[in-house]
Amino acid sequence: MTTIYRVDGMTCQGCARAVTNAIKEAVPDADVAIDLAGGRVTVAGPADEARIRAAIEAAGFEYRGTAPAA
Amino acid sequence: MTTIYRVDGMTCQGCARAVTNAIKEAVPDADVAIDLAGGRVTVAGPADEARIRAAIEAAGFEYRGTAPAA
Repeated sequence: MTTIYRVDGMTCQGCARAVTNAIKEAVPDADVAIDLAGGRVTVAGPADEARIRAAIEAAGFEYRGTAPAA
Repeated sequence: MTTIYRVDGMTCQGCARAVTNAIKEAVPDADVAIDLAGGRVTVAGPADEARIRAAIEAAGFEYRGTAPAA
């Protein structure tokens, strides 16, 4: 199961790392890929949207919902 | 009690927010100020270095120890 989330506020590799680590801390089995330019976070693994949203927001980034798969 | 920590890898305001929020999640009473250019994080409040170090590292940034107060 792969879900794409739209996330605002990620502007550099440090942000990408922070979001990746926050999601992995919340959902250890998740495989996370960040598209900085597109403001998208692709998560393969458990589709626990509520937990992933909470992790993104707790890290200080803006959760904007899911996006259709490309 | 104010402690200054040296932290590498913060390059933008998103990083600064991520580090701030990670520390506040670990130590809710902390008052956190980020010096991006200097790679320094000033924390006023409980001086729980181990917890703050763990929070910084879990967020994906590099903890480099404490710094003398300016």
